Amino acid sequence: MSVSEFDLIERIRARTGTGGEGVRVGIGDDAALLAVPAGMQLAVTADTLNAGVHFPDTTAPADIGWKALAVNLSDLAAMGARPAWCTLALSAPALDAAWLDGFLDGFSALAGEHGIALVGGDTTRGPLSISITAMGWLPPDAALRRDGARVDDDVWVTGTLGDAAAALARWLAGGEAGLAAVPALRARLDRPTPRVAAGHALLRLANAAADVSDGLLADLGHICERSGVGAEVQVDGLPMSQALSAVTAGVEDRRRWQATGGDDYELCFTAAPYRREAIAEALAQAGTTATRIGRIVAGHGVRALAAAGREWRSPRRGFDHFD
Amino acid sequence: MSVSEFDLIERIRARTGTGGEGVRVGIGDDAALLAVPAGMQLAVTADTLNAGVHFPDTTAPADIGWKALAVNLSDLAAMGARPAWCTLALSAPALDAAWLDGFLDGFSALAGEHGIALVGGDTTRGPLSISITAMGWLPPDAALRRDGARVDDDVWVTGTLGDAAAALARWLAGGEAGLAAVPALRARLDRPTPRVAAGHALLRLANAAADVSDGLLADLGHICERSGVGAEVQVDGLPMSQALSAVTAGVEDRRRWQATGGDDYELCFTAAPYRREAIAEALAQAGTTATRIGRIVAGHGVRALAAAGREWRSPRRGFDHFD
Repeated sequence: MSVSEFDLIERIRARTGTGGEGVRVGIGDDAALLAVPAGMQLAVTADTLNAGVHFPDTTAPADIGWKALAVNLSDLAAMGARPAWCTLALSAPALDAAWLDGFLDGFSALAGEHGIALVGGDTTRGPLSISITAMGWLPPDAALRRDGARVDDDVWVTGTLGDAAAALARWLAGGEAGLAAVPALRARLDRPTPRVAAGHALLRLANAAADVSDGLLADLGHICERSGVGAEVQVDGLPMSQALSAVTAGVEDRRRWQATGGDDYELCFTAAPYRREAIAEALAQAGTTATRIGRIVAGHGVRALAAAGREWRSPRRGFDHFD
Repeated sequence: MSVSEFDLIERIRARTGTGGEGVRVGIGDDAALLAVPAGMQLAVTADTLNAGVHFPDTTAPADIGWKALAVNLSDLAAMGARPAWCTLALSAPALDAAWLDGFLDGFSALAGEHGIALVGGDTTRGPLSISITAMGWLPPDAALRRDGARVDDDVWVTGTLGDAAAALARWLAGGEAGLAAVPALRARLDRPTPRVAAGHALLRLANAAADVSDGLLADLGHICERSGVGAEVQVDGLPMSQALSAVTAGVEDRRRWQATGGDDYELCFTAAPYRREAIAEALAQAGTTATRIGRIVAGHGVRALAAAGREWRSPRRGFDHFD
């Protein structure tokens, strides 16, 4: 069963509702009308997922719906913002109702967790592509920016690194069968957890933050570049999940997945050393762990250090979507 | 010459700047930080243009850049909102620097006219597709919604109708050569003018409004549906440009282009009859003409009337992107 564009918008409205905090007019007019709470500043981010580029073609529609929203919520989390609203631009070759219901299942599950309302969008014929612009708010005098890192700051990362890259490597090597053998890793690739509560908890504790979407060294590199500093990171001290520890792989593969693999959607942040206890406590309350993985130094660039202080050179830093 | 994603974002930032009213953090962080003026409500809209679906494959990159922004500004105009910021999600098979410069030429020309700042976005590999989410603001107690039309309201439309559809018909029949023969019509198709000043001028005068993107009868139909009313429109009284008058075409073709052709991006609005003088004056100050084309009646649906009050039946109403 295929659905027409107007049916599709109705279907989305019926599924996702028109309500939500601060939503005065939702889906169905030329534009949505929204009320930002008095005194708050607005945070806005946009990210696209394309089939075959950002997710395997065999990804379940519900996982695509989840991930398309998750990568945007991750950007809001990296600013310390509270998610509020989003728009969805969906291009698909032909719209199948079952596919769309699956997509909305995943999308709505994550949207519901974070109270984010879909307030508008566009559906068009074209190769499968999902662009979401997410909006949120935060206090006027606080934000986790990339340009606030200072020399001698600790470098931290939430959760664990490398699962998504390891899952992708399995998929590239063995397709669906390869992926099916590592369900925990696959879940990290398909259904990343945006660290929204952690970002909020870090608002007045961290000096700088970014989410790990392109790979740790690349994203920390962005912080360093914007802050005019350098960083040193211990690649063998990066936090690893039990699922990744259980995978048979060489040390170089592990380092590469953890240090340069994209799609982890953890938060990398820097903070003054005297904040260590406060950070551990705030993140524990937010339900997240965090690990100190290095420090900010004078200079520029990110040095990845292996055992005995030797510099580790990655064959590839981060993920450039036009490489 | 192809450019990498990071170069591309730098290129956009260099071209479009990071400033703009209310922009505290622009391109370059995980999310933009924006200040909505105190007391104002936020208007948000999203629209996608796909190559071959929304514009001919031969469209110049500068025209694509202009149009992608114009269709979004038109939605803000239809709410009476003042444009402020936008995000851009651009997918392209490979990014050619000359193509991108052309695209940004057109985008920036229109953005500059309306003082709208590009505050974020994403560039990815994929078939050519442009999704823009545009944001603006308006007073808390005023908006041009679709659901405010009342029985006995006049139905108005700004400017003229049918040029874009006539140009598209020329292109479908004769390709580039057909289009080149009608430059004024082509300009309406490729570089539509969003009626931003007109929308703002109508804020406290019109009862309902929508922009004419899917075709007059379809868009007026949306107003009627949301307002719980019907409408009658004189199809032979629709305002026509000199360029369209000069085209050799049958009366049915003309009616179809004017009444059901998409892509005009004029504003269709309804207002109480006692507002006629005030509306004419306000729109003249906004540099736009407007024509009364019908009235709101009790009931539902839009009746298109030809000469002698006979109902005109269109072979096709509006544009469904999944038809």
